[in-house]
Formats: sequence, C-alpha cells, structure tokens
Amino acid sequence: MSGNPLIALTLVFGVSLASARADHPNIVLIYIDDMGYGDLACYGSEVNDTPHVDRLAAEGMRFTDFYSSSPVCTPARASLMTGCYPGRVSFDGFGPEGRSWVLFPGFAEGLHPDERTLPELLKEKGYATAHIGKWHLGDQPEHLPTRHGFDSYYGVPYSNDMAIMPRRPKSPPMPLLRNERVIQEQPTQAALIERYTVEAVEFIQQKHDQPFFLYFAHLHVHLPHYVMEPFTSASRNERYGAAVAAIDWSTGLILAELRRAGIEDNTIVIFTSDNGSRQRGEGGSNAPLRGLKGQTFEGGMRVPCIVRWPGVVPAGSVSSELTSVMDFYPTLAALVGHDLASLPKHDGADVMPIWQGQEDARSPHEHFFYYLRNELQAVRDHRWKLHHQVKAGEESVQLYDLANDVSESNCVADQHPEVVQRLKAAMNEMREQLGDSRLGIKGTQRRPCAVVKDPRPLTEFDPDYPYIEPSYLLDEAG
Amino acid sequence: MSGNPLIALTLVFGVSLASARADHPNIVLIYIDDMGYGDLACYGSEVNDTPHVDRLAAEGMRFTDFYSSSPVCTPARASLMTGCYPGRVSFDGFGPEGRSWVLFPGFAEGLHPDERTLPELLKEKGYATAHIGKWHLGDQPEHLPTRHGFDSYYGVPYSNDMAIMPRRPKSPPMPLLRNERVIQEQPTQAALIERYTVEAVEFIQQKHDQPFFLYFAHLHVHLPHYVMEPFTSASRNERYGAAVAAIDWSTGLILAELRRAGIEDNTIVIFTSDNGSRQRGEGGSNAPLRGLKGQTFEGGMRVPCIVRWPGVVPAGSVSSELTSVMDFYPTLAALVGHDLASLPKHDGADVMPIWQGQEDARSPHEHFFYYLRNELQAVRDHRWKLHHQVKAGEESVQLYDLANDVSESNCVADQHPEVVQRLKAAMNEMREQLGDSRLGIKGTQRRPCAVVKDPRPLTEFDPDYPYIEPSYLLDEAG
Repeated sequence: MSGNPLIALTLVFGVSLASARADHPNIVLIYIDDMGYGDLACYGSEVNDTPHVDRLAAEGMRFTDFYSSSPVCTPARASLMTGCYPGRVSFDGFGPEGRSWVLFPGFAEGLHPDERTLPELLKEKGYATAHIGKWHLGDQPEHLPTRHGFDSYYGVPYSNDMAIMPRRPKSPPMPLLRNERVIQEQPTQAALIERYTVEAVEFIQQKHDQPFFLYFAHLHVHLPHYVMEPFTSASRNERYGAAVAAIDWSTGLILAELRRAGIEDNTIVIFTSDNGSRQRGEGGSNAPLRGLKGQTFEGGMRVPCIVRWPGVVPAGSVSSELTSVMDFYPTLAALVGHDLASLPKHDGADVMPIWQGQEDARSPHEHFFYYLRNELQAVRDHRWKLHHQVKAGEESVQLYDLANDVSESNCVADQHPEVVQRLKAAMNEMREQLGDSRLGIKGTQRRPCAVVKDPRPLTEFDPDYPYIEPSYLLDEAG
Repeated sequence: MSGNPLIALTLVFGVSLASARADHPNIVLIYIDDMGYGDLACYGSEVNDTPHVDRLAAEGMRFTDFYSSSPVCTPARASLMTGCYPGRVSFDGFGPEGRSWVLFPGFAEGLHPDERTLPELLKEKGYATAHIGKWHLGDQPEHLPTRHGFDSYYGVPYSNDMAIMPRRPKSPPMPLLRNERVIQEQPTQAALIERYTVEAVEFIQQKHDQPFFLYFAHLHVHLPHYVMEPFTSASRNERYGAAVAAIDWSTGLILAELRRAGIEDNTIVIFTSDNGSRQRGEGGSNAPLRGLKGQTFEGGMRVPCIVRWPGVVPAGSVSSELTSVMDFYPTLAALVGHDLASLPKHDGADVMPIWQGQEDARSPHEHFFYYLRNELQAVRDHRWKLHHQVKAGEESVQLYDLANDVSESNCVADQHPEVVQRLKAAMNEMREQLGDSRLGIKGTQRRPCAVVKDPRPLTEFDPDYPYIEPSYLLDEAG
C-alpha cells in the first residue's frame, strides 16, 4: 500500500463512517410560539418577510397537513417530548380540578419522571442535548428540562406574558434560567432572541463533532410583542412582522453556523409552531384556515412545518400527508436505533418514509384527534373532519370535506351521515382511552403526570433588587 | 463538650477561617470606558443619576486624586494588568513606528507572555478569575485574556467603535468572544450591558464559595452611545446619561448579587474609569477639571475611583492621597500574600494603609507622571503639577498649584522657579527610564511587549452571514 496512510484509512472506513453519521444526524428543532399557518411567506404570507425560513423550505419539505396536538402551548409541548396526545400523559388540565389550560408559575404539575422523553432517547444514543427557550412543562426544580433529558437549559420556563406586567402585577418576576439556576429576573424581552440565538450558536460550536439535539423554542410570536431593532423598523406588519423577522434572522444564523461548522448536510432542521395564531388584529394569520389559537378549527392546530435534511429529504418538496408533532418522537427514536415497541405507548408514528419522499409513503394515521383541554372536540381522517361536541346534553355536529373545503366553511354532515357515524365512533373510542371531561369519561389509558407537594414559583418580587424592568410595560397577554 | 459538634467546630476554627477569608477577599473591579471625573452624582454630577454607585461611595472610600496612567484606553489597561507605566511594558505606541495610541483590530502587539499580570498573581493564590467586557490589550489569539491569567473571558476585545459603521465601513465585524472563540459578529450594542451583567452574575453564582476576581470592563460610556431602554427614556442627560444609568444599574445588580450570595462583606468592589471624558458636547463631564480624554491636563487622567470593602475600608470616607491605577497590582498582590520584591518591577505601590483609612497613611508616590503615547508631558507631586514639553526645540512650561487650583487655570511657573527645576529634573529622570519619543530618548527600563507575525483580525465581513446589523448606524467614534 503506497501513499498517505490517512487517506487510505479514510477510503477503507469511508462507507461505514458515512453510514454511522447518517444514523446519527444532528437535529435542530426550531419551535415557534403561536405562529399561524399563514405567517410565513412560503405558506402564503404577503406581509411577513421570511427569506431564511423560505430557503429552509426550498431546500427541504414543507408540510401542508401538519398538526400540533393542542391549540395551546403546554399540552402541545408535552406531545413533542413524549409522542403522545396530551391526555395520555395527563397534560390536558392543570391546577385545581384541572381547570387551567396551561401551566402557570408555581404550578405543581410536570412530566412524570417515568416518561422516556425524546431527548432522553437521543441521549441514550450518544447525543448531546440542549434546550434553549420556552419549556412550559413545569417550573418546579423536579420538572425542569435538565431533569427530562437535556444536558443543558437556557431560557424562560414558561410563557413570556407570565411576568410582572400591568395585567399580571402580582406575577413572580420572569426568571431566566441557566440549567436549574435563575440567572436573571425580568430580563429585557426584546433582547432575548439575540441571547437565545447566540446560546444556540455556542452549543453548535461546542458540539459540532458529536451528534447533538438542539431544541430551540422561541418566545416570539407570543404576546407581549417586545421586538428588537432593526426588525421593528423594517417590518411591514408592525410588531408582529418584526417578531417573525427576528425568528427568520435567528433561523438564518443557525443555518449559517451549521454551514460554517461543515455539518449542514448532516443536520436535520425542523421548523414548526406549537399552535395557530391568536389572529385578533395583532398581525398574525392562519389563512386560509378557520379558527384561532385555543380552538379546534384548523387554524388553531394546523401549523407550518418544514423539515430539511440535505440528501435525504427531497429539496423543494411539499407533503400533504397527515402528520403531527407527535411523530417526531418515534421518527427520531427509530432513526437513532430505538426499537419503538420497547418505548412507552405513544400516538405518533415513524414518518421517515414521508420525509424521504418515498412515492408510496402515506400517513400512518387513520385519524387525528382534536382535543381542547380534556374535551375531544373533533377528528379528521384523510378527507373528512368531524366536529362533535356535547354541551349540557346538547349534541353539536359539523362535518367538513377538508380535501375541498380547507376553511371549514361548508358543513356537509347532512349529506354524509355514514361518515359522521364512522368518525363519531372513532371519537368515542378515543374518549374511552384518554377521557372526555365534558362527558364525564375518565379514560382508561391515561398515565399520570408528576405533581409535587408545596410547589413554589422560582422567583418572588424583591423590592431591593435592581430589575431593569420591575414591570413590563406592554399590557399584552395571551 | 456538649451540643452540636458542627457549631463547636465552627467556634474552634472560626478565627482562622475568618482570617483566611480576610486574606483572600473576592475582588470585583468595575472599569468604565471614558467616564469623566464629573460624571457621577457622588463626584458632583447634576445631570446623571447614579444611586447605586453613590451608595458604593457611601459605604466605601471615594478618591479625589486618583489617576489613570494614560488619557487613552489601551495604555491605561496595560497598567491595570501590570502595575506599570505603559512605557515600561511598551504599551505606549502601536502599529508602524508606534504611531497609533491604541490597538486596532488585527494589530500585532499584546502583553508580553513574561509579564506576570494581576489575574495571574491572584490565580496563583487560588482565585477564580474572569474578565467580562473590553480587553483592548491585543486581539490576536496569543494576546487574549485567557492567555494572561483569566480563566474565562466574555466580551469584545477592543473598543465599541471598532466595528463596521459609517465611519469605519471596512472594519472587521465586531467580535463577541467567549474565551477565545468568536460567538457573535456585530452584536446589538445596546443589549451588551445586560448580557455582560448577567454573565457577571453567573460567575458570582458559580464561584461564590471560593475567592474570585471579576474584572468587568464596560463598553459604556465610549462612543457610539447605543443604550437600551428603559435607561434612554429616563435619562436627563440624553444618551450619555442613559449610558451612565445603565452602568449604575449594572453595578447595583452586581452588589445585590453579592448580597444574595452572602459575600458582600468579603468582597472588595472597585469602581473606576480608564481615562477622562471626551466632553465634546456629548454629555460627559470632567468638571471641575481642565482637559479631555487624550490630554494630560487633569481632566484626561484624573478619574473617579471608589473602593468598598465593608469592615476594612471606612464607610463614607474620602481620600485625597495621590493614588493610581498602577497601585491595584501591588496592593492586591500583597494582600493575597505575594512578596512584592519578587514581582517584576512596577510603578504602583501597596496603598492598603490608605484604603484602610489609617490616620498616618500617605501616598507612597513622590511623583506621578503624565505620559501621552511616549511623550512625557507633565508630572505632579502632592501639591504642584508641572507641564513640560519640548516641541520643535521650543520648551513649554506651565506650573499649577493643584492644592489651590485644581482646574489648572493659573500658571505660577514664574513665581516658583525652584519647583519647576525640581519637577523638571524628576521628569528628565523618568525620560531616561521609559523614554520620550519627542526628545528622541529611548529609555533604559522598557520591557518589550509581544509582537506576533502575520497578525489578522478575528473576523472578516461575510456577505452571506445574517448579521443583525451589518453596519452600526450611529456615526460616532472616539
């Protein structure tokens, strides 16, 4: 053998190394708060400029029928971590009698320690794992990201309106955490995206030579809309557009950093949102969908989703297969070598064939269920969506043909009674599994969440502490 | 022996522990960029609000006759690190023929590796050392803070106007470093003080149970004045006052964090500036002193200095003893147990007796010399200040009675020829030691700085990189 032995070695091991890398690509999951289906240029927005995210779509796959599992934040994020409908892990109601939709500072609930979360599964296969940004799955020490599979955490553990502000004057000061330690109270919100993004850059710089999972969950575009310059000045859509632009910039910087690190081709980048836009004159859009955040119409739960993995996911592709936030868990677990049968029961499915653009790849989901808190309100299959709710003994039924009426504007229940019956039966079966509080059904397949005794907020207002902003000024929440 | 054995142990070892702690107090040195003698309320400002710094003064010692060793940035900082006049460590001229006053991006010079810096001396005695903010003692990898005694570094290694901005369109993008790695280019300047301060808080949180040295060097109040809200809105002195207020907030937060960590009494906090204000209609003040940054009149080099060490430095005291930035090196080195005679020759002196408020404590300095680059322009003793310069063979002499004429307004050279002669002799002796470029004197006691071959800026403009701000907008430098 002549020549450079290093080159020879590379030739010999080239194939298996490449294959090992393909089995353990880096994963960057960018998760937006309250971004609607119509908020990105590549999804039709004409008021927001999103060149970097659009490029992500042009180089990857854009999903038209991707769903969050909930129209609000906390339950959706539980699904991301566990691959389950929120009810399966008891993340569909909090506080006294489960009356709160989401977790507030000092609430007792969190993910159960027995849950095997997505970052835990990746860690087991050698991934470095980091969470930056909004967690919202419990702010008690026992419930923080570092207790659920993340090597490190940097962020605000709940929503950016859960702070001292005019409408919440008695909230604890908003805590910024490094791992499990409060490093700042009431940080300047507009500046957080820059701090988050640089934290992400640092993680990529440090971990680029090993498989990593970066879960980057933004505070934008949730209210209040504190956005930094120069995004504010450049926006055509006021502060909302500025928040979208800030996310777009951040995404572009992450992509550029992956490029600089030479790992762009070996990194799966996922971009999605936890639920639809509030769309109440605040600049957001779920167009062309009906409904808002907090509702089970499509606008509340169908959200943008883009997946880019050069060489695996076809560039510039679009998929209308039914997929959801719950699919990341089994898809990524299977990719890194987990036997899905050995994992806790989950509702998502391995959708890698869809990501790969295989011609015959179809959604593995016969149905998708729309829960609001613990009320099952709707179901869809590939074509039809049934809204079926029972309030005060009154039954309400709407059927929409999503294939031809994505805006849920034309109820066709009367024309398709057999579809109504079939989907109603599917809903009732789901109610038996995960419950329905409106109907008094407990559910037989619910796993408990964790509940700590004597929960306390992470911070309390200290009149002697020099907060930059003792109270945020914007009177926006939601 | 009865009772709790832990308490008993504490009683037995109490004295020696307390004494060990007193020998190794934490040290926080807050260093402002271009803050003038008249910029703090406790030094007479009526336009800037500085409640936290004023409290620092009320709880410590305020110095009226404290000097930087240079009216510009880089040389002053070399003194802080080495205890020397800049010329002694060849930090009085840079670039081709030493024509630059300060270091610019990509310059070849840095501190010589043989210099035993202040953080190195502290490290040798078990201190954790961190530098946050502006370094300005060389941006080449070999010259960074982490090569000169700091365990960690987070900051911009030179001035905040050395960036892409209208007046410097070809500058490299401003680099933010973590240790020796560029983690961001062209960061939002207004937000940096918050990021710096939280970084300081994290350091205190992490190291509060061991002796630490935190050297926190702000970007404010140097131009350009990018300042964050809410300081801008609250300022009575436009952006300059806002920058001062931001520093004051940051100082208050550091103090609060020391208090929360329970180490307030065991921490020396020093607050001072690298040189006087530019004072060119930009809001700064050297009142009541004459002269500006870049000049050897008092306003260029006499700066605010406050030292607080509860229980050691008398609260609310004022010292008019002549001290300087060069004194920190021997004072702190002696405090932690170094034999000063074993250290490299330096110009500062141990002024602990002054800090302690000992009644008979007098300045150890017979003279203080005012160098501009490598030109020795003036000298003072306890009462008199002589300006003696020779330009194009012409000798210029001014003598001021600082005890009665702090504003250097009334030249009394003619009335005191013997003082002129005595001080001129002292100056000539200093010129023999450290040189005088105007007079062609090389100096016999100069130690070399380090000079790397093929220096390069840390960054270069990349048209494909999504900077938040490809160019800063404010056209301010200086």
